Amino acid sequence: MEQPSRSAGTVRPGGRTARVRAAVLDATQDELVEYGFHGLTMDQVAARAGVGKTTVYRRWGSRAGLVTDLMSELADQSSSHADTGTIEGDLLANAVSVLNAVTDGRLGATFQAVIAAATCDGQAENALRAFYQRRITEWAGAVDLAVKRGELPEGTDGAEVVRAVSAPLYYRLVVTREPVTREVAEQSVARTLVAARAGAFVVPGSGS
Amino acid sequence: MEQPSRSAGTVRPGGRTARVRAAVLDATQDELVEYGFHGLTMDQVAARAGVGKTTVYRRWGSRAGLVTDLMSELADQSSSHADTGTIEGDLLANAVSVLNAVTDGRLGATFQAVIAAATCDGQAENALRAFYQRRITEWAGAVDLAVKRGELPEGTDGAEVVRAVSAPLYYRLVVTREPVTREVAEQSVARTLVAARAGAFVVPGSGS
Repeated sequence: MEQPSRSAGTVRPGGRTARVRAAVLDATQDELVEYGFHGLTMDQVAARAGVGKTTVYRRWGSRAGLVTDLMSELADQSSSHADTGTIEGDLLANAVSVLNAVTDGRLGATFQAVIAAATCDGQAENALRAFYQRRITEWAGAVDLAVKRGELPEGTDGAEVVRAVSAPLYYRLVVTREPVTREVAEQSVARTLVAARAGAFVVPGSGS
Repeated sequence: MEQPSRSAGTVRPGGRTARVRAAVLDATQDELVEYGFHGLTMDQVAARAGVGKTTVYRRWGSRAGLVTDLMSELADQSSSHADTGTIEGDLLANAVSVLNAVTDGRLGATFQAVIAAATCDGQAENALRAFYQRRITEWAGAVDLAVKRGELPEGTDGAEVVRAVSAPLYYRLVVTREPVTREVAEQSVARTLVAARAGAFVVPGSGS
């Protein structure tokens, strides 16, 4: 496995491998944002990162390998779930973090490029799936806490609640191509919560 | 001169222009499914359709023009909203029609190709937006009928209800790359209905 290297700034001793990785992933993201997955080439990434082509080919194998490592790094950098003390606060924090990501010029374009890549490349698809699996599992923890606090019914499916909050934002972003705003985020949280409180996210047969 | 290779269905008198269009859109869809938007070329579409290149260039201008016309044709072919007599039945029909579309080999691949194209092409983006605008508006009519029947509160935003039903299906399809199943469709309808009945889709200040 690679060394963890979330040193976007700091360079630790012995971190040459990590520095190369950071430069290559940074260049991968730049190229994705500018040219999309179809315009992404190993050679351009190597040139942009100031790293030998051989290194890039040996270590990442293909542009899909680069995208996979980039998504893994983005998941590593992502924050833990919120713990505001209320499920409403936590889900709003989740929705706002999605909103901020997709409306951020660089990050939003990165996600759109990988979403596009996943429609025609199996490795990119796996990278995308793994990224959201991690994020959904992380945020499901906030729902589990709400169940423990008695805010939501026993047996509520945390992952499904988190998916329900995010879905309307991504649907507008990449499918209907409509604006994704703070209001959309807030409405999504409010509607999901009404359904969750009423038990609509309880896994059938989950009663003890 | 160009000759339509085949016409999908009946050929009406005087329908030469229509036949050419049908052949070209059919070829556009085939090429999209096989090669994606990045692999779509006017020349290949013309060859596949058995139509002269000049005609294709003159009439559609660009591959984005082809995609725009294809999406408009797909919207024309789409069915009217259901009218089963209950909002539950109608929303389930909507969710199932989305499910059938995205899990249909040819149609699903077409949507994924256009969703990918929209991330990097403004015209494809507009075509996609226009398609869903039409579909959402059409199905919102079923929600309006439910409000008239007293099944949902006055002021319920029909378009938002329809978006909420579809969003989890598309989210899994193109973002988290998770299976889209009948169960996902049913859960989406059930959760949306709980929220809608509780007034979570009522437009603020819509009271008379």
